[in-house]
Amino acid sequence: MPELRKDPVIGRWVIIATERGKRPSDFVSEAKKPSGRFCSLCPGNEAKTPPEVYVLRPDGSAPNTPGWRLRVVTNKFPALVADEKLEETSTGVFDWMTGVGDHEVIIETPQHHARLADLSVEEVVDVFWAYRERIRTLKKDTRFRSIMVFKNHGAAAGASLDHSHSQLIALPIVPKRVVEEMEGARTYYTDHHQCIFCDIIKQERAAEVRIIEEREGVCALAPFASRFPFETWIIPQDHGSSFEEMEDYDGLAQVLLGVLNKMDRVLTDPPYNFVIHTSPFGESNNEFYHWHMEIIPRLTKVAGFEWGTGFYINPTPPEEAAAYLKDAASS
Amino acid sequence: MPELRKDPVIGRWVIIATERGKRPSDFVSEAKKPSGRFCSLCPGNEAKTPPEVYVLRPDGSAPNTPGWRLRVVTNKFPALVADEKLEETSTGVFDWMTGVGDHEVIIETPQHHARLADLSVEEVVDVFWAYRERIRTLKKDTRFRSIMVFKNHGAAAGASLDHSHSQLIALPIVPKRVVEEMEGARTYYTDHHQCIFCDIIKQERAAEVRIIEEREGVCALAPFASRFPFETWIIPQDHGSSFEEMEDYDGLAQVLLGVLNKMDRVLTDPPYNFVIHTSPFGESNNEFYHWHMEIIPRLTKVAGFEWGTGFYINPTPPEEAAAYLKDAASS
Repeated sequence: MPELRKDPVIGRWVIIATERGKRPSDFVSEAKKPSGRFCSLCPGNEAKTPPEVYVLRPDGSAPNTPGWRLRVVTNKFPALVADEKLEETSTGVFDWMTGVGDHEVIIETPQHHARLADLSVEEVVDVFWAYRERIRTLKKDTRFRSIMVFKNHGAAAGASLDHSHSQLIALPIVPKRVVEEMEGARTYYTDHHQCIFCDIIKQERAAEVRIIEEREGVCALAPFASRFPFETWIIPQDHGSSFEEMEDYDGLAQVLLGVLNKMDRVLTDPPYNFVIHTSPFGESNNEFYHWHMEIIPRLTKVAGFEWGTGFYINPTPPEEAAAYLKDAASS
Repeated sequence: MPELRKDPVIGRWVIIATERGKRPSDFVSEAKKPSGRFCSLCPGNEAKTPPEVYVLRPDGSAPNTPGWRLRVVTNKFPALVADEKLEETSTGVFDWMTGVGDHEVIIETPQHHARLADLSVEEVVDVFWAYRERIRTLKKDTRFRSIMVFKNHGAAAGASLDHSHSQLIALPIVPKRVVEEMEGARTYYTDHHQCIFCDIIKQERAAEVRIIEEREGVCALAPFASRFPFETWIIPQDHGSSFEEMEDYDGLAQVLLGVLNKMDRVLTDPPYNFVIHTSPFGESNNEFYHWHMEIIPRLTKVAGFEWGTGFYINPTPPEEAAAYLKDAASS
């Protein structure tokens, strides 16, 4: 089974696939692998995926048969496995634990060729609702401490299947970036008695230069210290510490579709990733952290400097990126 | 001029190119750009680069003319600029500073088609010596707090020129990853009165499973919590907190060449990045931090999950990677 291992110096956890390790030849052939014709995510091929754990389908229709509008299944090749005991071990300076977790695929639409950006507001609301329901269910599993919801669009962004889907991974640890954001936000709250994200939104709405769009209390902005060209955050204006505590995803769906369509017009269907940052379990409701979504178009190659240092060189100022995207609305 | 901006939540600094921002169309064309015939790093084209700041050339030969064995010049398109005053500003939650720094290119060989892996031990020692001399010179500039030396090999690793070169960037801040490593190492030292890297080396040498090679007091190993397949660290066995304090780079050059040639055999000239992690200025000599080199072959696409979380899924266990590389020696 997979292992979770902790870097002894900086405390970063990684998943190590121990069972079916990729051999050197796997990497050579991978780049040349053609995209197959058969799609296991399409209606009619339900038997080719693990059984659905959440679905939107007509009342009375049989599970794992066609007719669904949205379907969530366990990943066939999961990075972590659910049916194992969580065990921690250490030897000298090294700590690791069994690779317990849950890795699911959210099939966003039955249509093979539709992108997320092509869906209706209602369909995107359904996708968010699926995230919410799965998070709320997995939260009850006491082995898990956090959940990451993410999407890879386009091969350059790491998508290995064409059919539009997102993924979630439930983890027995809290990833480093989330720990850092929680710590940073907690410190700011202690000093200022305010949520730092709420203060950022207030300052950005006054400055206007990095705001891309605002609808129904949801804001899209180019972050001040953007790591990547056209990096965009989507964040609710009102304080909320957890994505899955939201009761209404309408504004979020409108803004996400607005941003994806603007990126499409400005950058011609760029490959992109998004990730939802939400509070870890056990501290879902707090005054200092503000859940949000980070969208990263994959336009530049990340080089050694970035990997080695966690320090980024961004060739497009966020103010310019915001202006391009904002203007795209009128075209 | 460029700006250095700080993420208000997690404190990560980024360089934002404000002067000549990349427009959306720049990204579209970039992927298709053919590799040009003209090479500004080749002998005879010295006038096409900024003047050399360090060089190995026959006694008496004129600067910026052919005949050199190794040449260091300022980057023609620097990410940061040297001839400006360091000024810090803040507005509300945002902090930034003028993009003061130094960005240099180390031209490792006059031969256009030679890779670093093709050079002799003596030539690689010369490269390390060039790093050392430039770091020691730039250290005297009180505006700078750290230096990153790195290399991108192959287009997929971000190299934009074919001619073998590495780069260095002197910074008025300390990058996040380095801060984290310093903090982690300092905490360990406080608790155990030992350098954590020394303890890692001791434990790895006893366990043997992740050691790739050892020569003249320098060790190459696959780190326990490797983020990437075939990630390799090169680290001196004896404690040393700064790369530029070394007096002898012979073992280092032998091990680096050994590792690159093994990767070449096992992974067929993979694109790779390396970065040298060394103590920030002002604390160059300490008992807790251990300088090292991190080499990352670029075999997998990094997807949204990794970007968004700082959490990596590595499909090749480091023990297997180490075994493949170790075995390559005998082929």
